Amino acid sequence: SSYQAFVTLATNDNYAKGAMVLGRSLRNHHTTRKLVVLVGPQVSDPCQSVLKKLYDEVRLVDVLDSGDTAHLAMMKRPDLGVTFTKLHCWTLTHYSKCVFMDADTLVVSNIDELFEREELSAAPDPGWPDCFNSGVFVFCPSMATYDRLLQYSTEHGSFDGGDQGVLNGFFSSWSTADISKHLPFIYNLSSIAIYTYLPAFKQYGANAKVIHFLGQTKPWSHTFDPKTRQVRGEGAQDVAASHSSFLLDWWTLYSAEVVPMLQGHYGDQPF
Amino acid sequence: SSYQAFVTLATNDNYAKGAMVLGRSLRNHHTTRKLVVLVGPQVSDPCQSVLKKLYDEVRLVDVLDSGDTAHLAMMKRPDLGVTFTKLHCWTLTHYSKCVFMDADTLVVSNIDELFEREELSAAPDPGWPDCFNSGVFVFCPSMATYDRLLQYSTEHGSFDGGDQGVLNGFFSSWSTADISKHLPFIYNLSSIAIYTYLPAFKQYGANAKVIHFLGQTKPWSHTFDPKTRQVRGEGAQDVAASHSSFLLDWWTLYSAEVVPMLQGHYGDQPF
Ligand SMILES: O=c1ccn([C@@H]2O[C@H](COP(=O)(O)OP(=O)(O)O)[C@@H](O)[C@H]2O)c(=O)[nH]1
Ligand SMILES: O=c1ccn([C@@H]2O[C@H](COP(=O)(O)OP(=O)(O)O)[C@@H](O)[C@H]2O)c(=O)[nH]1
Ligand SMILES: [Mn+2]
Ligand SMILES: [Mn+2]
Repeated sequence: SSYQAFVTLATNDNYAKGAMVLGRSLRNHHTTRKLVVLVGPQVSDPCQSVLKKLYDEVRLVDVLDSGDTAHLAMMKRPDLGVTFTKLHCWTLTHYSKCVFMDADTLVVSNIDELFEREELSAAPDPGWPDCFNSGVFVFCPSMATYDRLLQYSTEHGSFDGGDQGVLNGFFSSWSTADISKHLPFIYNLSSIAIYTYLPAFKQYGANAKVIHFLGQTKPWSHTFDPKTRQVRGEGAQDVAASHSSFLLDWWTLYSAEVVPMLQGHYGDQPF
Repeated sequence: SSYQAFVTLATNDNYAKGAMVLGRSLRNHHTTRKLVVLVGPQVSDPCQSVLKKLYDEVRLVDVLDSGDTAHLAMMKRPDLGVTFTKLHCWTLTHYSKCVFMDADTLVVSNIDELFEREELSAAPDPGWPDCFNSGVFVFCPSMATYDRLLQYSTEHGSFDGGDQGVLNGFFSSWSTADISKHLPFIYNLSSIAIYTYLPAFKQYGANAKVIHFLGQTKPWSHTFDPKTRQVRGEGAQDVAASHSSFLLDWWTLYSAEVVPMLQGHYGDQPF
């Protein structure tokens, strides 16, 4: 299991904050696996320093670097910028198996059992449940798969403009082939599902293992008052709804365990 | 296959209209299976007469009738009234296999291939996709199963107050046991999914086989002007959205093929 890792991605300082909280939450729940974060060149030095404390490996990925094989693909499909960066996780061939997690996810329980699953395992997407959500997935790094993925996305593009469309197009038998590749929804519980089917959330939500803050508004889009423990946001209704307890969990972890690390690097500068 | 049937349920005249459209749409797509509708005692005589023309079998179910085994269960769980009525479909033991369809569904293509599936096959629910949606499901009538279902619902109730909660509790291995029991989402395409993940709908929606108008607002909650071919509703935004083309399909079928049958029975009375 030393050849297994959790992998995330942050191309800017906002998503880097998400990656910090995610990394911290994985450590807090005592994962025995390595932690890897792919960072884009826009992530600031102080953020990279904090990430280095939380992650075993901080790997710079730059698809605009013409030495990269994704560069050519990127020139043909400039719309798929971050997507090509995410696909880079397949190049981590010094690991035999990995779990990719979006930087806007939060682990609320140990999830090392995910490494028993095979490529490509993922949870269904609420909304169009024959698609898997690409915020959490089990995969096996391989340059051959990476090359085929780049070729696929260059040729077919992405039906939703992002990595989820590409990955569902490529791993197109997910919905029909093998039930063991369907991760339980509690491994990728989108906050969106709480509103759409509240009774199911009340029935099954207590078993949540990973919360995914998918959609426009991210935890870091809000502000937080540590004294009153109040999260405030622009979309007041959004926040008011019942997933605010998970949002509070995110902010509690961020302010208690991540902010002090950032302060150590930024000093008195705002961040 | 003469022992196989599509089954729906209507406890009042509004849902009866839905059942008429559903029955018509199954016939229009040349099903070779029998059509059965369970009706409650509140369905008016003219509606029952129209249903008799469209369905091979119109069966009265009345869970308030103390001769019924559901009566006792019902006395203990009055909150589950319509749910117990829906469970009655398991008593149709003169068929070996059936497909239940909500009265708010519309068939847009022949779906007889569903009879190749086993009990309990259903499509995932958008919203909480580890639950199946109980608007379309394959089942095998059996008094033993019926009794166990009544007992289960009396003891455990329904986590969502309806049949979907009961059936997901009872057939609880659906999400983990057998991929062949996962019907493709296009066999139960909830209009809701169109908004939540429009790119997926654009990619896969053309293959839709069954549309499900789930939620508060039903096709019959709207009004329709056959001359301008405009659907109007209270929730103007709801209607404006992209599923209005399916809503138009429903109304086109209703006004062209069902209304004339109703007029034959109601004469000049409003209905
Ligand atoms: O500008 C961006 C956008 C996305 N991401 C990464 O790609 C993932 C997927 O994007 P996002 O979570 O915003 O999509 P959603 O889950 O809301 O569909 C993020 O979690 C990050 O890991 C990133 O690093 N920079
Ligand atoms: O008053 C009612 C409510 C429901 N139903 C039947 O039960 C199904 C499930 O209810 P509904 O479709 O309203 O639930 P939804 O799909 O919106 O969750 C309906 O399609 C009908 O077949 C009925 O006959 N009378
Ligand atoms: Mn995400
Ligand atoms: Mn329905």
